[in-house]
Amino acid sequence: MKKRIALLGAGTVGAGVCRLLAENGDMILDNNGVEIEIAAILVRDLNKERPGVPKELLTDDFEKIMADDSIVLVAEAMGGVHPALEYALRVLKAGKCFVTANKELLSQHFEELERTAFEHGTGLYFEPSVAGAVPVIKALTDSLAANRIYSVMGIINGTTNYILSKMSEENMGYAEALAEATELGYAEPDPTNDVEGYDARFKLSILSSLAFDRRVYVKDIFCEGITAITADDMRVAKDMGYGIKLLAIGKMEDDKIQVRVHPTMLPLSHPLCSVNGSFNAVFVNASAAGEMMFYGRGAGDMPTASAMAGDILHALMQETRRRYPFVLGGVPAAQITDDWNSAFFLSSVAQDEPLVLARVANIFGKHGVSLKTVLQPGEASDGCTRVILITHITSELKFRKALEELKELDCIEVRNIIRVEE
Amino acid sequence: MKKRIALLGAGTVGAGVCRLLAENGDMILDNNGVEIEIAAILVRDLNKERPGVPKELLTDDFEKIMADDSIVLVAEAMGGVHPALEYALRVLKAGKCFVTANKELLSQHFEELERTAFEHGTGLYFEPSVAGAVPVIKALTDSLAANRIYSVMGIINGTTNYILSKMSEENMGYAEALAEATELGYAEPDPTNDVEGYDARFKLSILSSLAFDRRVYVKDIFCEGITAITADDMRVAKDMGYGIKLLAIGKMEDDKIQVRVHPTMLPLSHPLCSVNGSFNAVFVNASAAGEMMFYGRGAGDMPTASAMAGDILHALMQETRRRYPFVLGGVPAAQITDDWNSAFFLSSVAQDEPLVLARVANIFGKHGVSLKTVLQPGEASDGCTRVILITHITSELKFRKALEELKELDCIEVRNIIRVEE
Repeated sequence: MKKRIALLGAGTVGAGVCRLLAENGDMILDNNGVEIEIAAILVRDLNKERPGVPKELLTDDFEKIMADDSIVLVAEAMGGVHPALEYALRVLKAGKCFVTANKELLSQHFEELERTAFEHGTGLYFEPSVAGAVPVIKALTDSLAANRIYSVMGIINGTTNYILSKMSEENMGYAEALAEATELGYAEPDPTNDVEGYDARFKLSILSSLAFDRRVYVKDIFCEGITAITADDMRVAKDMGYGIKLLAIGKMEDDKIQVRVHPTMLPLSHPLCSVNGSFNAVFVNASAAGEMMFYGRGAGDMPTASAMAGDILHALMQETRRRYPFVLGGVPAAQITDDWNSAFFLSSVAQDEPLVLARVANIFGKHGVSLKTVLQPGEASDGCTRVILITHITSELKFRKALEELKELDCIEVRNIIRVEE
Repeated sequence: MKKRIALLGAGTVGAGVCRLLAENGDMILDNNGVEIEIAAILVRDLNKERPGVPKELLTDDFEKIMADDSIVLVAEAMGGVHPALEYALRVLKAGKCFVTANKELLSQHFEELERTAFEHGTGLYFEPSVAGAVPVIKALTDSLAANRIYSVMGIINGTTNYILSKMSEENMGYAEALAEATELGYAEPDPTNDVEGYDARFKLSILSSLAFDRRVYVKDIFCEGITAITADDMRVAKDMGYGIKLLAIGKMEDDKIQVRVHPTMLPLSHPLCSVNGSFNAVFVNASAAGEMMFYGRGAGDMPTASAMAGDILHALMQETRRRYPFVLGGVPAAQITDDWNSAFFLSSVAQDEPLVLARVANIFGKHGVSLKTVLQPGEASDGCTRVILITHITSELKFRKALEELKELDCIEVRNIIRVEE
């Protein structure tokens, strides 16, 4: 059967979808009995050169796509919230399926989109929005459908993982690694969105909403970027058997949901620690399946196009629609918490006096934070010494209080704080 | 909507499915709108104690399941080819969906089952048959549907991975590690099926058939087990920066398919090298998505039940059936080859004489095999010395010929051969 679709956007991902369907359309037809025909491609500039994108399909008129009843699915790869949202709602209200790679759109307007799809009996698909080619959305919604999800921990921003990998492998500083990432096109000219963790936060909003069957809003996600990580942190961590990764973490503990994006120290033996360069990976802990990891290319034209084409085919073959827990109810009572348990790594410079450690330990003790490791690496110089602490697992809020008090001491200067997961 | 299903078998996996649906049936209904009701469970012995399995659903009469038109799906977890095959064909001919965890059944009778499902307009699902909870089947058939698959490389036998991990981590010999695996229940009393690679071969037949859209028969898969691997091999490999894993490899190169199960040396930095214990992982290289890895529990009651429940739900919600390339055509002209390219590690003991290396190198040279590394670790004793060779990438058949000639030399005794992948 032939199915006609439209694309919104013919940038990197849109053009990738064109190329992929042109190359492998015959194989898809042979294997699945579906012939996917791109009927129209919405662009702003009709005259721009776009290799692999058939010029005769271009249109700058969204209404032409809406008016064509033979188009049963619209795939969006334009990015940005507007006008993507308005288009998405129009498409769904017309009963056409909507496939999107747009994490920002989804994380901001998940419920409205899901509800509209539900009310109009059509489908919303978004595998390409998180972790590129890695089929983690389908894993959470389909393969693990019979599981309670305890946690998701993901390296879901390739730019920051590239930077941190460079820092670790080549002992580079943050600025130098960022400069190289920018030069190679892994980081955008303004890297804020990536290095401050905002991009990972959008994606975690989507992942954790699916994992916990509850709408998790971007605003509720704790977020800390990688800009404060130094070559020294990286080195000290490695000496202690840890790597440092920007993790997006969603956990359900005691019916509370914790959602957070921050640099994280992980044991070098942890599967996520060997995810290097611009690769993405999501580690899932599920009630029946146990621990799983999904690893692959999180960005790029063809990896994202691969996910989009997979979703297009899936949508075209799926008659029954599902997965509207936010709309239909079925949401557990779980609440988002701003407190959670983890261990902390603290790097500092302190006066080289016998009583300093006692004063530090005293403050932590007062706030119920117990220390697991205290190191004074290297020699003292100028009357100062490095002090590295790792706490036992403790409460985020207790630690923050202890830290506040610690910062008031004259005898110690806190350089960095990094959360530790095992 | 309520859907009634039957289970064949109430062993580890069948009982796991019962428990999982009992625990999480409400959540599945909330999220997907489907209520899965187990209507009957076929067992041989009605009186055996089976915790978590409702006794009132047990039957020893397969005909009762067939006669019940309200049962729309049958999930099989009995194992063995007979009578599973006869049951499967009856189920499919009756237009009911068939879900199976039975790799042996599938790898031996894939086409007959697919054809029967096709001819009767129903569905055949088998995610639990390979790598337990890891959704690699769905990745190959759905998520990567728009990709050509270049290769699959999998650690898909937990028993052997447990043994090799123990040997590597604790410097154990094969016999000792096997004994521990047996004691802990990771290996069966007769471990032949696992340690000789037969189990992995069944699974590779399924994976590579899907990957290459061509029926790959068990008999065409080269198979070598792990019984010859020694603690010494493991140690030498590690010193050279390699780990040793039992890999199931399917590759398409120059329109030829190579399929092989054998112990493999992999660089320690390869993602598959950090897959330890009884975990499974499948590494896929796809044309658009690039390199991916799927990691998780490859066996056990709940992980396999997780995959089975996911497939059951998927089948119940899927109206359109697909993926019958073996039946409908669409098979590329690719042929299975018994020659392929890889590097080789050769461990030997040779006479400590200046000309021995020259004679060895001469034989390899004559057969067009070039050497990358030659090591003589340790001191000579009793006039003998260890010789370790690693070849450049070469042809399997050329290497075998060189090896034959090498074995005729008096001055060198070949201890072990291990293929090397990068």
